Amino acid sequence: MMTQIDYKKELETASKGMIMIHDHVLLTKLLVRMIVRKARLRHAGMILYESARDSYVLAISRGGSGDRIPERFLRFDHTHPIIRIFHQKEYKYLIDSRNALVFDDINRLIWHETVLGSANGSREILRQVSEQMPMLNSVACVPAFYRHQLLAVLLLGAKHDGARLEQDELDFFSALASDVAMAIRNAQLFEGLKQEADRSRNLFIQTTIALGSAIEAKDSYTHGHTERVTKCAQAIARSMAQQGAFNVAEKFFENLYIASLLHDIGKIGIPESILVKKGPLTPEEYAVMKTHSARGADILVALKDFEGCIEGVKHHHEKFDGSGYPNALKGDAIPMISAIIAVADTFDAMTTDRPYRAGLSKEYAIAEIKRYAGVWYHPAAVAAIVELYEQGNI
Amino acid sequence: MMTQIDYKKELETASKGMIMIHDHVLLTKLLVRMIVRKARLRHAGMILYESARDSYVLAISRGGSGDRIPERFLRFDHTHPIIRIFHQKEYKYLIDSRNALVFDDINRLIWHETVLGSANGSREILRQVSEQMPMLNSVACVPAFYRHQLLAVLLLGAKHDGARLEQDELDFFSALASDVAMAIRNAQLFEGLKQEADRSRNLFIQTTIALGSAIEAKDSYTHGHTERVTKCAQAIARSMAQQGAFNVAEKFFENLYIASLLHDIGKIGIPESILVKKGPLTPEEYAVMKTHSARGADILVALKDFEGCIEGVKHHHEKFDGSGYPNALKGDAIPMISAIIAVADTFDAMTTDRPYRAGLSKEYAIAEIKRYAGVWYHPAAVAAIVELYEQGNI
Repeated sequence: MMTQIDYKKELETASKGMIMIHDHVLLTKLLVRMIVRKARLRHAGMILYESARDSYVLAISRGGSGDRIPERFLRFDHTHPIIRIFHQKEYKYLIDSRNALVFDDINRLIWHETVLGSANGSREILRQVSEQMPMLNSVACVPAFYRHQLLAVLLLGAKHDGARLEQDELDFFSALASDVAMAIRNAQLFEGLKQEADRSRNLFIQTTIALGSAIEAKDSYTHGHTERVTKCAQAIARSMAQQGAFNVAEKFFENLYIASLLHDIGKIGIPESILVKKGPLTPEEYAVMKTHSARGADILVALKDFEGCIEGVKHHHEKFDGSGYPNALKGDAIPMISAIIAVADTFDAMTTDRPYRAGLSKEYAIAEIKRYAGVWYHPAAVAAIVELYEQGNI
Repeated sequence: MMTQIDYKKELETASKGMIMIHDHVLLTKLLVRMIVRKARLRHAGMILYESARDSYVLAISRGGSGDRIPERFLRFDHTHPIIRIFHQKEYKYLIDSRNALVFDDINRLIWHETVLGSANGSREILRQVSEQMPMLNSVACVPAFYRHQLLAVLLLGAKHDGARLEQDELDFFSALASDVAMAIRNAQLFEGLKQEADRSRNLFIQTTIALGSAIEAKDSYTHGHTERVTKCAQAIARSMAQQGAFNVAEKFFENLYIASLLHDIGKIGIPESILVKKGPLTPEEYAVMKTHSARGADILVALKDFEGCIEGVKHHHEKFDGSGYPNALKGDAIPMISAIIAVADTFDAMTTDRPYRAGLSKEYAIAEIKRYAGVWYHPAAVAAIVELYEQGNI
């Protein structure tokens, strides 16, 4: 008796912590493994409802006895006898009183109906269930409902010592199953929300890259520029953070990422005659071209919660000595995001072909950037790109 | 004794369901209200940790006794005696043995230390705690830790019948508090993820609108066109879904929303000389202009999982009789998303000023659209916009 109480307490405590596992597959595995070990069963398994396919799957099946069934190999629809019987009115009394579908009960019932005769022809489902349970290595199936929906079925095998599963044990597993049903539903909701967040994020990134490319497409020389600058800027920031050049904050990396993707978006507002001109720009044309960073910030002004990113776009052509635009900011007055994009942008511009010259070598570009450290470029950002170059990481 | 067991079972069952409440404020309120009622306490409250501000707040305080403290009125930092004492080593034995901070214990300890003298000057914190507890209407404070972090403190007031809170009751509340701490952490993670999903979504929508406006800005006549078409298309779809014109699926509305926002994005690739030309276009120029819907689809081709939306953009200039572009699709071969955008797009184009004419009246626009129902426009989409117009909803 002591053993029994012990395994219940252990399982109960463990099941409580399960709501913090937001991966329903892992959660199911941990539980089933624990049941087999603690309750000393030859086998345990779990059938899970999957809303995406409106059907059930044998998510896991553990233990030494019988054939091992591969995970997710068996799929059951609503007509499967083991699913159907939990919804069948005439057997509701059976499951309610036992909190489980018990193999011995089923066989006793079949025998009764064979001897006494059955008016409603329901013997067929009993026969099917009695066939299925041994195939699933289970002597009892415990349903887990959440708001009247059958979310899971816990499959319990025979005990190692051959003893029967007592009613208090079935009651215990039933309570456990309903806790687990909630934990599973919770995890599934979590996973759904996570997917939604990822989808929205990917949608933004992909659209921004696509639109950036569309703008770049007008000037075939800059193809892929946005993506390269974004990657390079991230690498510089990571390296700077490792060197302790500034306080790492996740928000900073997010803003940098978005600002890099959008840094040239203001070119949308530059007349094509200037944007794609093959020859050198006149001073007037150059003045218009230089408005693109401020225009970019104007376009993005409605992006709530992303002020840091808008600032990043606006100032990516400022220079450390104050000779940049649009605000002639100096030194540390230039947002760090902009200072990083400036270095990444310059490096990419120098190393790719331009209308008026072929791309320069990386070696030359790095030497030039180094020469202007503390003059045009933030020294820490320069140190970081030099390091990346020397490590062969750009 | 019976009453005690009853309230514990009730509270236990209720607390299990709490992990499905993904709003930590609501969850806290429900729990505290239930404790006051079921355990027959004069008062109960809950102090919650808020990671965003790295401090604690009195989230809720319920009951009839003493002054009612407004929700979220009191904020405690880590130096507050009631927070600090749970981390103070010399009182750990006290809290561990009782599973709570008990008012009577504190006063007994103060008396002891006054009589026997205290070497470590720790009496000060006891005195502060003994002052604070009555102000918070509590005779016991039950800490709720999750992974060694103090997530919440459950404040328990005196019982209505004047009886003391027994140790088994404190143990029960301690177990309850740790379940609740997990439920709260779960809810907070959920809320965080939800916010992240909303942020990403808003970022996408705002950027798309901003970029759409930047393209529109080149042609001042179409200002606000994208937003108006998006709203109108949503209204048409909702109305059609209500009429049972097609199967409602959330995915459809999402695709329609995104496709509407992006429907003219291909104009990014149209030369300005054509895009902003004041006079009528030559046949050659018109042919280039007509490429914008297919160009839009090309730009968006990388958007995984959004094929429906790309199709929507591509075919928003198809016509019901097959006289549209780019694929001269006919009738039901035209994606429903495109058919809806086509009607919304036409309505907005007709009712706003254009380079070559002033905006037409809504009445006239609706009459024209009706005239071409089943010729250019999908009859169900036309029926929907007519209804919206007649109800004064556009």
